[in-house]
Amino acid sequence: MKSFSKNAILLFVLLAASHLNWSCKQQNKSNSTNSVTGVIDALPSFNEGTSKTDIITFVEAISDSTSNSYVKPEDRIACFDNDGTLWVEQPLPSQIFFVLDRIKELAKDHPEWSTEQPFKAVIEDDLETIKTFHTADVLKLVGTAQATQNVDHFDTVVTDWLSSAKHPVMKKPYTELVYQPMLELLDYLRAHQFKIYIVSGGSQEFMRAWAPEIYGIPKEQIIGSSFKRDVLKQGDSIRVVQTTDFDFNDDHEGKVIAISKFIGKKPILIGGNSDGDLEMMQYCDTANPLPHLLIYVNHTDGDREFLYDEHTAMGTLEKGMEVALRRGWTIIDMKTEWNKVYPND
Amino acid sequence: MKSFSKNAILLFVLLAASHLNWSCKQQNKSNSTNSVTGVIDALPSFNEGTSKTDIITFVEAISDSTSNSYVKPEDRIACFDNDGTLWVEQPLPSQIFFVLDRIKELAKDHPEWSTEQPFKAVIEDDLETIKTFHTADVLKLVGTAQATQNVDHFDTVVTDWLSSAKHPVMKKPYTELVYQPMLELLDYLRAHQFKIYIVSGGSQEFMRAWAPEIYGIPKEQIIGSSFKRDVLKQGDSIRVVQTTDFDFNDDHEGKVIAISKFIGKKPILIGGNSDGDLEMMQYCDTANPLPHLLIYVNHTDGDREFLYDEHTAMGTLEKGMEVALRRGWTIIDMKTEWNKVYPND
Repeated sequence: MKSFSKNAILLFVLLAASHLNWSCKQQNKSNSTNSVTGVIDALPSFNEGTSKTDIITFVEAISDSTSNSYVKPEDRIACFDNDGTLWVEQPLPSQIFFVLDRIKELAKDHPEWSTEQPFKAVIEDDLETIKTFHTADVLKLVGTAQATQNVDHFDTVVTDWLSSAKHPVMKKPYTELVYQPMLELLDYLRAHQFKIYIVSGGSQEFMRAWAPEIYGIPKEQIIGSSFKRDVLKQGDSIRVVQTTDFDFNDDHEGKVIAISKFIGKKPILIGGNSDGDLEMMQYCDTANPLPHLLIYVNHTDGDREFLYDEHTAMGTLEKGMEVALRRGWTIIDMKTEWNKVYPND
Repeated sequence: MKSFSKNAILLFVLLAASHLNWSCKQQNKSNSTNSVTGVIDALPSFNEGTSKTDIITFVEAISDSTSNSYVKPEDRIACFDNDGTLWVEQPLPSQIFFVLDRIKELAKDHPEWSTEQPFKAVIEDDLETIKTFHTADVLKLVGTAQATQNVDHFDTVVTDWLSSAKHPVMKKPYTELVYQPMLELLDYLRAHQFKIYIVSGGSQEFMRAWAPEIYGIPKEQIIGSSFKRDVLKQGDSIRVVQTTDFDFNDDHEGKVIAISKFIGKKPILIGGNSDGDLEMMQYCDTANPLPHLLIYVNHTDGDREFLYDEHTAMGTLEKGMEVALRRGWTIIDMKTEWNKVYPND
């Protein structure tokens, strides 16, 4: 998840516990007609415009072995944030809805939670108490929801939930609320031999359960926030236990550390949507001897998606926008540059 | 590096400071004649025998889409230890020689070390004092030798050293002391769409500097022990600093944690040579629904390499051998099963 600022927790409270009164004008729009040049359009859900041109110009240049901008395939590392960059993150990151549902599910085996905070308030949808939660309470909920005696069996917990859960505003499965233009971008990059990583504030195990199938990005290329793991030995058997102790916050500077530890190469393409992604973009943009492209997805479309910006508690884009404008990074205007938002539109 | 037991530190002392009186009978042996079946032999430096048969039988089975043992390419994850599995680790892991040389080099800019332990003893080759070192002293030396104000520039520190350093016994560059049969095994696995990781007790940055070129394993697939990283911001610039604070010991249970965090899939092949590799092998062997192969390299050849076993401080193989024998894992007898040890033999 994104880091939990005070405001974010308030939003968490106001929206999640009351399950939800946010409204969103959804519209089905037909695809825009794309170019009729006869050339296959790898990014049909992008309208012709600055962002599409930036992307194609960059990818073609770094793939052209005769160009000064050529980048060897092994150095074509792309890192994408997940929430708000590849799928919907409003009114709250989907993982938070998973956590709330999971706590209520686990409560059946934890009668003691009926008197124990922060669980009691979640079970009872007790808004007033939830309002008083601190970051430690939220992390306790997230950690408890995702603790497991065998990390290798956790996938099904998440995929079972995803198979029936619906986004509270859009009333669709979460996995249908990925951004079609970004799926096309991932495919386009893979076709040009990019190795694509997710570097997200969301929990690693939560994402690894579904993102490989939905995005075509393998588990080993999914980096996220994490809780401490332990090893449990029984005779010759060894399994990995995930504890409730928070370990690593993969947001802001954490994303830079994660790239350094997990990848060890400076990426040449970063996609993000919030201030939490700024540091990894700046890292990519610092003394990088290779051509590189930095892309912000800007949530300008309150009709088809959610309109949010620098004044939003979750997914804030304020300082990032200032730097992006000043340094000439690519800013995707969802409203005008995407003719399709979701795969099933 | 392997974990520093008391004995290991003693060995460190006895051998490193005196720079070295170990002798090793080196012999150049011609390659054995391999099979004359007309079939291309992917593992020519392996003599026909149990290990070669185990490997080929396994790889062919998991690659055969008509076989019950078939494994999809995305699940073909192989993890290898480095020191003693892919290259020489006696009389000490090569990284330790790097650390000693680096401390002496850095000492030129640190006159205060002339009175400060543990540096003073290293600079002066003071064996008696080094004998009193604890793990914290050794980690301080390793951490100091590898600390950097910019992780992205550290490669050249290591590669510069490697370009001139010689193994104290073998009198060859360290990068020539990789095991030719294991290079062939890596190539063979890659030809069968394996994704190969190094999961080593050695420091991640040390290995990432040279292993991509020597083994063909990219940086992002090299996992090791590590020191804490910080992010340093200056205006829009961001770089990653490596501190001297030890962070993660990628040995024994740490290797299991590392596989879980960095890869998130249970490997189907593990190669190791010591008790430090046992836990990741046991993890691979626990409730693994996929066929899997566990390989121990056994250092039985005191003529061409180093003879060591359960009674050795560094690279001990005692409990691992017991488990391997009991569970029928593959044990490569270097002396009888490898007709060539190093690429330039």
